Amino acid sequence: MGKQFLAITAKEEVTRNIAELSTKLAKRIVAETESVRIDRYEALGRIVARDMYSPHDIPPFDRATMDGYAVVASNTFYAAEDNPAALRVKCSIPAGEFPSQSIEQGSCTGISTGAVIPKGADAVVKVENTVEEDVAATVRTVKIYKPVAPGENIMLAGSDIKRGERIVNKGTILTPRETGVLAACGLNEVVARKKPIVAVISTGNEIVTPGETLTPGKIYDVNTQTLCDSVRDNGCIPVSLGITRDNIKEMAGKIRESLNEGADVIILSGGTSAGAGDVLPNVIEELGEIIVHGVDIKPGKPFVFGMCREKSVPVFGLPGNPTSALITFNLFVAPLLRTISGVSLQSDYDKGEITRAKAAVRIFSEPGRNEYVLVNLERAGKNFVVYPILTGSGAITTLSKAEGYVFMAKGKEILEEGEEVVVELLTKPVSFGKRGAFT
Amino acid sequence: MGKQFLAITAKEEVTRNIAELSTKLAKRIVAETESVRIDRYEALGRIVARDMYSPHDIPPFDRATMDGYAVVASNTFYAAEDNPAALRVKCSIPAGEFPSQSIEQGSCTGISTGAVIPKGADAVVKVENTVEEDVAATVRTVKIYKPVAPGENIMLAGSDIKRGERIVNKGTILTPRETGVLAACGLNEVVARKKPIVAVISTGNEIVTPGETLTPGKIYDVNTQTLCDSVRDNGCIPVSLGITRDNIKEMAGKIRESLNEGADVIILSGGTSAGAGDVLPNVIEELGEIIVHGVDIKPGKPFVFGMCREKSVPVFGLPGNPTSALITFNLFVAPLLRTISGVSLQSDYDKGEITRAKAAVRIFSEPGRNEYVLVNLERAGKNFVVYPILTGSGAITTLSKAEGYVFMAKGKEILEEGEEVVVELLTKPVSFGKRGAFT
Repeated sequence: MGKQFLAITAKEEVTRNIAELSTKLAKRIVAETESVRIDRYEALGRIVARDMYSPHDIPPFDRATMDGYAVVASNTFYAAEDNPAALRVKCSIPAGEFPSQSIEQGSCTGISTGAVIPKGADAVVKVENTVEEDVAATVRTVKIYKPVAPGENIMLAGSDIKRGERIVNKGTILTPRETGVLAACGLNEVVARKKPIVAVISTGNEIVTPGETLTPGKIYDVNTQTLCDSVRDNGCIPVSLGITRDNIKEMAGKIRESLNEGADVIILSGGTSAGAGDVLPNVIEELGEIIVHGVDIKPGKPFVFGMCREKSVPVFGLPGNPTSALITFNLFVAPLLRTISGVSLQSDYDKGEITRAKAAVRIFSEPGRNEYVLVNLERAGKNFVVYPILTGSGAITTLSKAEGYVFMAKGKEILEEGEEVVVELLTKPVSFGKRGAFT
Repeated sequence: MGKQFLAITAKEEVTRNIAELSTKLAKRIVAETESVRIDRYEALGRIVARDMYSPHDIPPFDRATMDGYAVVASNTFYAAEDNPAALRVKCSIPAGEFPSQSIEQGSCTGISTGAVIPKGADAVVKVENTVEEDVAATVRTVKIYKPVAPGENIMLAGSDIKRGERIVNKGTILTPRETGVLAACGLNEVVARKKPIVAVISTGNEIVTPGETLTPGKIYDVNTQTLCDSVRDNGCIPVSLGITRDNIKEMAGKIRESLNEGADVIILSGGTSAGAGDVLPNVIEELGEIIVHGVDIKPGKPFVFGMCREKSVPVFGLPGNPTSALITFNLFVAPLLRTISGVSLQSDYDKGEITRAKAAVRIFSEPGRNEYVLVNLERAGKNFVVYPILTGSGAITTLSKAEGYVFMAKGKEILEEGEEVVVELLTKPVSFGKRGAFT
């Protein structure tokens, strides 16, 4: 048995390391990855790879913005409640039809919102300020009770968007509002960034794929599921490579397979601590360089991070314990995925990931450790309180019971009842549906 | 031409009406809609339709939670730094293998985290508290420097989850943490609620499908795109029925088609104001009952809401103007969709949809109207300021420029520079990826 040395790195240094790398990596991925053509109808949430321009003037014609009468504005200048201007109504122009008549001094047309302004007209009088008594009469006349200025209630062709104008910038994440603008301009396709591919590998001699027979000594693999789902949550495409046994040859083989599959990032879980049969650090050493081996946090100490020599692909080794795997994923892997996928672009005023609460009871942490204490949140009036979860990081149910975690830095061993804490949410409110389940 | 009467309803009343209906409708949809079987791997974000139970004990066996030695605890009770207990090491048990040997007084086995505790052992001593000098020796001996209590560093079979225990409650929205628990229990399928189906219909004689030729007087349909995307954002499945012309027969036909398609909600846009050719209210009257026709807000006044007689399906008629359509969708339709889809279940501590900011300049609203003023947000130090968007609700670009809106109630005609405002976000931070784009 025996004990392998872990050169523990401070959490802040790991975070800084990964943040620097993320930015470089994001640039490289954007530069090297081909973009994909996507139908506008499927484009929601995707990142636009090229600036987009309108092929049309919007609106394409001078357009009425009110129901009423298209007039020569000067014909209404002296109109008043007690002195209406009377104009001959030549016809009515509904939306969607091209006007066959033009107007001149003394005449006008009825007009609907959205209809084309007829030649000769330079303003629209709102229907509320008019009276036309007999629309069916052979000679129609309307009385106008309020003056309009030239241009009033008309939207000029191209005044919203000019033909050739840039309508969506490269790098924009498409919301319904931008897809609406694309529709308005008649564009059916978007050139979007490909999503980064993340290989997910579970390691361990004791784990089997859920659903297979559980022979004595074996347990089901949890991390493939939670990590693939978390990868989706952070804007990337997970590719599961299944389970590998804890030996150098098999693990190196899976990493090479990941590189061949075009993985931009590789995540393994298990095989990272200093116990028997933990070989991942050796594998990374063989295929490239270890940057971090061990972080000063609990849970998550045996976190490994390195780069594959050949293609400069980052490799993360997370602890095998599902809760520790998820916490180290959230701390160190998610920020990188959010940067390379572009999800982080939108998080500027994203306040969903943390919340403030008070400790409902005294909470203890292990002396001398930077500890993430798993908690659940409960409402207390308008605020939240947190209770620590005591099942421990080894239990699977810890995962489903915890809503988030509270960080207790080394030296902070007790949180008093009522003390204010910042809770990092495991189930991010922002994350619901981010999962792509709503298609 | 002329003017049809709109019996304006107060915004609060409309909201209350729709909220009451939403709850009833959600119950009916949950009761009547069949559930669907979904692969665990695709289940993220879905709502579980039945309570789920574990078919296994988790862990399935007594399991070591540390690397070290499996011992009879009483053999270590008097161990100390200066008086180690010496035990014979019978073998080492790696994770994933079933131990072939049992232990007794005076003997122990090496054991890895996750391995099966051998018969006879009742505790695990951490490797840190032991010294075994020659693991390869024929007769192995380990010195133990700290006592352990019975049960220490062992997780008992079923102590995390008992066979038959309920692991996920009906109605839960699956996050990576619950899908992880399902994996741990070896469950590959989830019975999930079907997502509600929302029919989306654009009406108007002037609109054509984006990409088709734009003949004089026509414009491209924007609302099919923005409303379908917004329906996805709120956890439902949009079914686009395309464009219908502004006449009773065609519109009634599309509504009947929606009912035949199994729509749970029908959304039309356009055809709602009191101008020429606006027939939607008449159609709803014919097929059922109008509940609201006109709301005291700007933009969005000509909002219509009714119920189809035949199947009690709610029908929304939104203004044709894209910005007004999106605002009335967010105000009145989204809450209903969030309730019936179950998305709202998770929004308890969702703070993403509003944010506080200060007015960057004086902002005016129309006297006598409840107005939603479209704004964009800018960072100012740690806070945000808002600027009003002046292009007006008729412009398509208003949609893409605005990040949210500020409500100015009737009687509040001026917001002073620096005054604090609550901004309802159009691009909800929570909404990114919610769009199902990340699959």
